Amino acid sequence: MKNSKELIPLKIIASGTALPEYRVYSSDLDIKLNQPNGFVEKRSGIEYRYHSDYEMPPAKLAVEALHTTLQNHQIPPSSIDLLISASAIPIQALPYSAAHILKESQLKAGTACFDINTSCVSFISALHVASGLLAAKQYRRIAIVSAEIPSRGIDWSHQESSLIFGDGAACMIVERGDGQSGIVTYKHETYPEGLELCEIRAGGTRKNLRTGMEDSDFLFQMQGKPLFKMTASLIEGFTERVLASTDLTMSEIDTVIPHQASHLGLEHIRKRLNIKDERFVNIYRYRGNQVAASIPSALHEAIITDRYYGRDYVMLLGMAAGLSLSEMILKP
Amino acid sequence: MKNSKELIPLKIIASGTALPEYRVYSSDLDIKLNQPNGFVEKRSGIEYRYHSDYEMPPAKLAVEALHTTLQNHQIPPSSIDLLISASAIPIQALPYSAAHILKESQLKAGTACFDINTSCVSFISALHVASGLLAAKQYRRIAIVSAEIPSRGIDWSHQESSLIFGDGAACMIVERGDGQSGIVTYKHETYPEGLELCEIRAGGTRKNLRTGMEDSDFLFQMQGKPLFKMTASLIEGFTERVLASTDLTMSEIDTVIPHQASHLGLEHIRKRLNIKDERFVNIYRYRGNQVAASIPSALHEAIITDRYYGRDYVMLLGMAAGLSLSEMILKP
Repeated sequence: MKNSKELIPLKIIASGTALPEYRVYSSDLDIKLNQPNGFVEKRSGIEYRYHSDYEMPPAKLAVEALHTTLQNHQIPPSSIDLLISASAIPIQALPYSAAHILKESQLKAGTACFDINTSCVSFISALHVASGLLAAKQYRRIAIVSAEIPSRGIDWSHQESSLIFGDGAACMIVERGDGQSGIVTYKHETYPEGLELCEIRAGGTRKNLRTGMEDSDFLFQMQGKPLFKMTASLIEGFTERVLASTDLTMSEIDTVIPHQASHLGLEHIRKRLNIKDERFVNIYRYRGNQVAASIPSALHEAIITDRYYGRDYVMLLGMAAGLSLSEMILKP
Repeated sequence: MKNSKELIPLKIIASGTALPEYRVYSSDLDIKLNQPNGFVEKRSGIEYRYHSDYEMPPAKLAVEALHTTLQNHQIPPSSIDLLISASAIPIQALPYSAAHILKESQLKAGTACFDINTSCVSFISALHVASGLLAAKQYRRIAIVSAEIPSRGIDWSHQESSLIFGDGAACMIVERGDGQSGIVTYKHETYPEGLELCEIRAGGTRKNLRTGMEDSDFLFQMQGKPLFKMTASLIEGFTERVLASTDLTMSEIDTVIPHQASHLGLEHIRKRLNIKDERFVNIYRYRGNQVAASIPSALHEAIITDRYYGRDYVMLLGMAAGLSLSEMILKP
């Protein structure tokens, strides 16, 4: 294998996604936001995204993605021995989301589960942690689910954030495999001076009934321009460090699966890292930013469009609230 | 080594705790809750617990536990290459707590970090995940921090939950070690039919500004008796399954470190599992239930009272909101 590091064995054996019922066209938002026809699509780069209604049970999309994946690949629910919930925004402050997903699922009671959270790159962290647990032979078959309902945190008075978010979920089932596929390299870096550039302040010990809270604390607070500037200043050096840990160059990566943050952000990264358009998986136009569900949803898209299996190297890549950068090179 | 499974290498190289300033005596609560003198101490089994004021920055205790641990053991902050936040209740809905802790800490910007959450047994899950990442040689030295401020979620009109919670934090620094110490066995089981027996409903996609929320959604909702009954029905069988994966019996475990859930719960578990009092680490009387910070705080207590290093086998044990059971046998 063409790299100096040992491969951490990991095999994706199945994948699937789920979306809520309502397709929200940008033209619908033009009306809602009192803008001329075509404004939202031009501004957001999105034709439509999906929003659930406020009555949808919070674990529904996660469970649908899990069950779709199991059913389509004829994997018995009882064969899953660990469930990882890898989402940015929890269902509630206590207990953890994986227990909620387990409750509504066909997985057997008693199944081991936990949440892992690195905001929008949670799925990459989960894949990495799963590979460690499979290496230690603690589990045999792991289900990772990323599910997000950002529509419940949209500040409709704030144009920037109100246009981009879409709900959705994705699931991947992973095993150790035969050692021929796995993680070539992985890196996660967090620069918390950028923490306030994207946040929802309520939800835990900071803003609550006791400490005081405002309506805005429940909604996305985004500073798009500084966020864009900070990620732009970090992404090249970070990617160089990732590639330097291998013998690979970007031109040898067959498929790049980025977090679907925004259309300008996606195009900026693609150009900055010199990635050919056909190698860059972009589902943003029909999904929007699905927070932590974006990366596994785009990975599923790569799988079903023959851009994953059979390829030599695939990169997952994302910037996340924190501010965190994460990249992983997989041998499929 | 006396067990049939391979040891997963893991060495705790340093530990420390942090507590907020205010010691709240049960006699103080007698007055606050309009009860006769001695009522709260008798009812709760607690002499005092610690509560922070509502102005305390939410990452403060976590950072104090981390820095105390690093300083007391003369570990350079720059030598930590992964920070894991292992707490039940997040700081806010987005981004994840580890980024908040990193921001206020002396760790270098760019340090890898993530949150792991299995409510009150999060620390055990973090130790397990850390051992996997160390096995895969992804990191060399990992800091795990569990920090909780349950005083901000107390429903003062609900006697059961209002008496037991205390704030606090604990930190453990772990490495792979020389392979002589590590995890003998580990098991986590979740039975979500008990999910509603202990929860805080707000904080995420379930109860918020859009879906609707009430004051009570921000406070602990506990059903003490059914919770006690359910854990009592599960703990013996679970512990049998854990021990069956080794050649050990409970009498060979030198030190048992339980989650400090309640004084009746602790005593019930100790008797039910036939553990001698002197082997059972109980800090509940002077801390109360510190949620996910209880287990590492009790582990630190075992370390500084010579009940960890030099012993053959130590068990971590906890029941958690979810409802989850977790046990780990360590060779120190």
